[in-house]
Amino acid sequence: MIAVLKEGTTQAQMDHLVSWLKHMNLDVHISKGAEVTILGLIGDTSRVDIDLLKSLDMVETVKRVSEPFKQANRKFHPRDTIVEIGNVRIGSGYFAMIAGPCSVESEEQIIEVAMAVKASGANILRGGAFKPRTSPYAFQGMKGAGIELLLEAKKATGLPIVTEIMNISTLDLFADVDIIQVGARNMQNFDLLKELGKTKKPILLKRGLANTLQELLMSAEYIMSEGNEQIILCERGIRTFETATRNTLDLSAVSVLHNLSHLPVVVDPSHATGKASLVPPMAYAATAAGADGLMIEVHNNPACALCDGAQSLTPHQFDEVSHRVQRIREVIA
Amino acid sequence: MIAVLKEGTTQAQMDHLVSWLKHMNLDVHISKGAEVTILGLIGDTSRVDIDLLKSLDMVETVKRVSEPFKQANRKFHPRDTIVEIGNVRIGSGYFAMIAGPCSVESEEQIIEVAMAVKASGANILRGGAFKPRTSPYAFQGMKGAGIELLLEAKKATGLPIVTEIMNISTLDLFADVDIIQVGARNMQNFDLLKELGKTKKPILLKRGLANTLQELLMSAEYIMSEGNEQIILCERGIRTFETATRNTLDLSAVSVLHNLSHLPVVVDPSHATGKASLVPPMAYAATAAGADGLMIEVHNNPACALCDGAQSLTPHQFDEVSHRVQRIREVIA
Amino acid sequence: MIAVLKEGTTQAQMDHLVSWLKHMNLDVHISKGAEVTILGLIGDTSRVDIDLLKSLDMVETVKRVSEPFKQANRKFHPRDTIVEIGNVRIGSGYFAMIAGPCSVESEEQIIEVAMAVKASGANILRGGAFKPRTSPYAFQGMKGAGIELLLEAKKATGLPIVTEIMNISTLDLFADVDIIQVGARNMQNFDLLKELGKTKKPILLKRGLANTLQELLMSAEYIMSEGNEQIILCERGIRTFETATRNTLDLSAVSVLHNLSHLPVVVDPSHATGKASLVPPMAYAATAAGADGLMIEVHNNPACALCDGAQSLTPHQFDEVSHRVQRIREVIA
Amino acid sequence: MIAVLKEGTTQAQMDHLVSWLKHMNLDVHISKGAEVTILGLIGDTSRVDIDLLKSLDMVETVKRVSEPFKQANRKFHPRDTIVEIGNVRIGSGYFAMIAGPCSVESEEQIIEVAMAVKASGANILRGGAFKPRTSPYAFQGMKGAGIELLLEAKKATGLPIVTEIMNISTLDLFADVDIIQVGARNMQNFDLLKELGKTKKPILLKRGLANTLQELLMSAEYIMSEGNEQIILCERGIRTFETATRNTLDLSAVSVLHNLSHLPVVVDPSHATGKASLVPPMAYAATAAGADGLMIEVHNNPACALCDGAQSLTPHQFDEVSHRVQRIREVIA
Repeated sequence: MIAVLKEGTTQAQMDHLVSWLKHMNLDVHISKGAEVTILGLIGDTSRVDIDLLKSLDMVETVKRVSEPFKQANRKFHPRDTIVEIGNVRIGSGYFAMIAGPCSVESEEQIIEVAMAVKASGANILRGGAFKPRTSPYAFQGMKGAGIELLLEAKKATGLPIVTEIMNISTLDLFADVDIIQVGARNMQNFDLLKELGKTKKPILLKRGLANTLQELLMSAEYIMSEGNEQIILCERGIRTFETATRNTLDLSAVSVLHNLSHLPVVVDPSHATGKASLVPPMAYAATAAGADGLMIEVHNNPACALCDGAQSLTPHQFDEVSHRVQRIREVIA
Repeated sequence: MIAVLKEGTTQAQMDHLVSWLKHMNLDVHISKGAEVTILGLIGDTSRVDIDLLKSLDMVETVKRVSEPFKQANRKFHPRDTIVEIGNVRIGSGYFAMIAGPCSVESEEQIIEVAMAVKASGANILRGGAFKPRTSPYAFQGMKGAGIELLLEAKKATGLPIVTEIMNISTLDLFADVDIIQVGARNMQNFDLLKELGKTKKPILLKRGLANTLQELLMSAEYIMSEGNEQIILCERGIRTFETATRNTLDLSAVSVLHNLSHLPVVVDPSHATGKASLVPPMAYAATAAGADGLMIEVHNNPACALCDGAQSLTPHQFDEVSHRVQRIREVIA
Repeated sequence: MIAVLKEGTTQAQMDHLVSWLKHMNLDVHISKGAEVTILGLIGDTSRVDIDLLKSLDMVETVKRVSEPFKQANRKFHPRDTIVEIGNVRIGSGYFAMIAGPCSVESEEQIIEVAMAVKASGANILRGGAFKPRTSPYAFQGMKGAGIELLLEAKKATGLPIVTEIMNISTLDLFADVDIIQVGARNMQNFDLLKELGKTKKPILLKRGLANTLQELLMSAEYIMSEGNEQIILCERGIRTFETATRNTLDLSAVSVLHNLSHLPVVVDPSHATGKASLVPPMAYAATAAGADGLMIEVHNNPACALCDGAQSLTPHQFDEVSHRVQRIREVIA
Repeated sequence: MIAVLKEGTTQAQMDHLVSWLKHMNLDVHISKGAEVTILGLIGDTSRVDIDLLKSLDMVETVKRVSEPFKQANRKFHPRDTIVEIGNVRIGSGYFAMIAGPCSVESEEQIIEVAMAVKASGANILRGGAFKPRTSPYAFQGMKGAGIELLLEAKKATGLPIVTEIMNISTLDLFADVDIIQVGARNMQNFDLLKELGKTKKPILLKRGLANTLQELLMSAEYIMSEGNEQIILCERGIRTFETATRNTLDLSAVSVLHNLSHLPVVVDPSHATGKASLVPPMAYAATAAGADGLMIEVHNNPACALCDGAQSLTPHQFDEVSHRVQRIREVIA
């Protein structure tokens, strides 16, 4: 970490600062220039509050040289992490094709969709049981009963399942869930992250709507710092001024995260775009960008003709997406 | 709510949609134009999933006419809500001057600051006990012991206290806290909001870093829908591309929220700007914009000369801010 | 266009509004509901100032049903526009592989790069002669002399050329340029757009750093309204809070623009990311997302080893990108 | 400027870089640490392309210590600039109350408004003659004839006038205009800025919709680098995800700009919010934040009852705003 001091900083002020930094077990390397003085801070700077340092009157600017995350950092763990769920692997060339309905609605629905997506190449089943909704009046999911139905579908198809947790007090219900999802709105629910770090479950961690990639990795670090290293990062769109899509899918995130971290990265084009017609092109784009997997909503509700056109694909549409994704993977391999 | 159907929608498709909407207990008023057909949805549309409706192939666009929040809505509750904490009132002309240190550090510190800010006109004491930190390696606050010290300061000064909750499992520790704060990162932790709705405590609800004002009101609605109507909204800056300040304080939020809702609105210039020198002008601006209160960080640490210049004001600086704020209030009254 | 009037609007106010709208040659269809009154405006609403309408006290909300752009609108021009430059076509399955250096520096440089990228499959040569720079002290390009060198490279290779205009007073220098580029910072330089609309040159129009896709199409409309329909739209990244990349490449823009408009869409991954290592994955992703072309910076400067690693690819790297792009095009065809 | 080199950079690579930097007339101070090497670049770094430097493979990070703007920089010009227009001064305690209609419409209109706002304390008259409009089909202003009418109003009232230029080819029409405005969309129309730098006219430079404050100052620098130092900066709202207001007024900009630069800063609450009811509170807030002036739309059109409620204030509303603004100025003086 480098701190640049302002012109006019007195020796006494600088001594104060240096002694304070040394109290944090940092070595301080001082380089006095004509106009500015540069302090190089050496040691474990992940504990230094960069905002506090920046806010000091004598400090012109502060710049981290090393990232504040350690366990998630590729520098200290050069080989790709491979998350394993039974026979399914994610990362380092292993691809997760996660598909299923937005919400679990009935046994018939979830089993039918599960069988369809499995036949088309999905290797993990998704389905919402606890649903975070902006409005308290909206449907909040089938909750525990929804997880039961997912487990039925798992039994019927052999597909491992992923579903979202909103509250650590419900953890017991997730005992047989294969991957626990942390939603965008909980990406910085630090207490939830710490508790999930104490489990041995793989965690699918979604990027918050307005979080930087470094913050996503710091949230992964919260989980890892408690001992759980089985983390799958998920890009799902960020909030911008553009209104033509629900969110703006940031596909550069895939490469940036691969450069910074060893953790696998999957992309959710369904939530990001909010429109079924945009899901296939964004699924192809995410694959071409090097994603380690996709998370795609698929429904199967012949009784509800209305739902055609929603952000979910039909099993037939998913089948085509799945096959083209496979061919794109071959091109970029 | 108005839904505009695309040109070329068949009668059968429209019938399907209308029958689905009627199942949700809505009346549907159909207006056929030359190019488009407009459906007016009448009834309780707060339960309608606008995103689902928008995503239907036959739907060109959907527009809410009435807001999705009800209990927080000024239309149904024209008079200002006044939140009462002992002798202190907030809203409708009553002003909350909330001041105190970022984090509670020691009994001496918190009592000294509390006495100083009280002498300068503060009527509520703030202080962080549970600290949400981006890094798991950063200081996470004194937790329960911090709340104990706040209660000591309350006893010494008579000031009611506000402090942040991060996890509903710690609620017991807040039994004597006067106002419970929900931080920006938990604004959409819906399970936490629901549980706080079951308490009788006033809640200070901070706007998320990238949340719209309507979303802030929907989060207030979560709390209110469980029976707790004592809510103070707090603007604390949003995330933009600008890097000269930590966040961009959105002062238009004050008037917009006052127009949409009857709840009081306070502003936190300390977190928004991250720099002490920007706190006074933004405190004056927030007051002039019509805020019902301010939340300002004040420290008192003569032993740590380093801290001068951080985002906290000294008691002396706060004293001047407090007096000018009072004079600006008189101008805009 | 639909305008929803507030509850409590008087008949006299509404009559005023309706007569004002009729003065703009619009038919007004009035639908009175229990709580709101809806006005359907029929006719050429592209001339209606939606902001003014929204700002009226009696108006609750206004919503466009038809887009404000006409000539760029796919609804009125369902078939893809194909821009033709000599033998090169762009759009509707024809792919533009545009490559070349950021800035033209010397005859040797531009001809060498042009020959290299042509050999790798590029069909259009790019090179900056007029350079928009944030700082007045930065190199502003070779200007007219740079265009001369591009024309030399065109003669040597047969590749058509594209280069940026910053000021209509320099139009004469572009007489033999094949495609004139309008940069992101000039996307809403409306006087420049109008003048370019009077030429017969194909225009490559880049999206502004914080412009919506509708605004991009309105800027295309400015050019088209003067008679020039040869427009290529270009996505080059938007500004967000993320700092890991220079801008956030919005690849959903490709499909959204294809849905709204008949104009071809190319993507510039070099400027968006600002880092050579991110260019190949984003070039693949853009292709998989359905782009009609790519615009990639390639340099060839063996004397300046420093430049390795900048946002430009080497000819060797470009060769690999070009071939994989071709294979991805086959997969999504 | 500081450049941090990556671990593993070879001596040969570093020598290359250092020699390249020295060619730009910079001194390079090398500080080798255990893990990183830091280069301190001393000299005129305003010509260094920071993006190019950052993009080099061997470079971990680059940080400017000194700002890239010089003539606009308070460090080199500690005293406030006071812009003088006849008897009117702006900056360093002198306040500009700029008021007038959005667009000039008729002689009667502009003179009536001018007399009204003068009576209420305005000291500069605004009015749009050339109007930048998103749509080519919208009214583009009265152009030259509008400037003639502004000059009539100036003659009638003695108020100096400010109006927007969109195209340098119209400069002759501005011969008697007192202040030339550069609109948000032209903030980075660098050729226009350079030409305005060659005039002796005061320039009111509006911040672009998605530009940083540093970029605003760099655009001021473009004008100043050609010899014109009479610049008034204007904050008018930035684009964010919030939809309740047209833009988000960034009032921290006032203090940040005052810290970085000696140029006066005015605020335009009318365009930022787009709603008359938000103009008074934001005008008060801007004043309390320390602005050197306000720019407020005022109309006077008794024949058009429709316009009540638009973003413009009536003369009566403006009168109240003007008086309260004066009182707030006294509080913060």
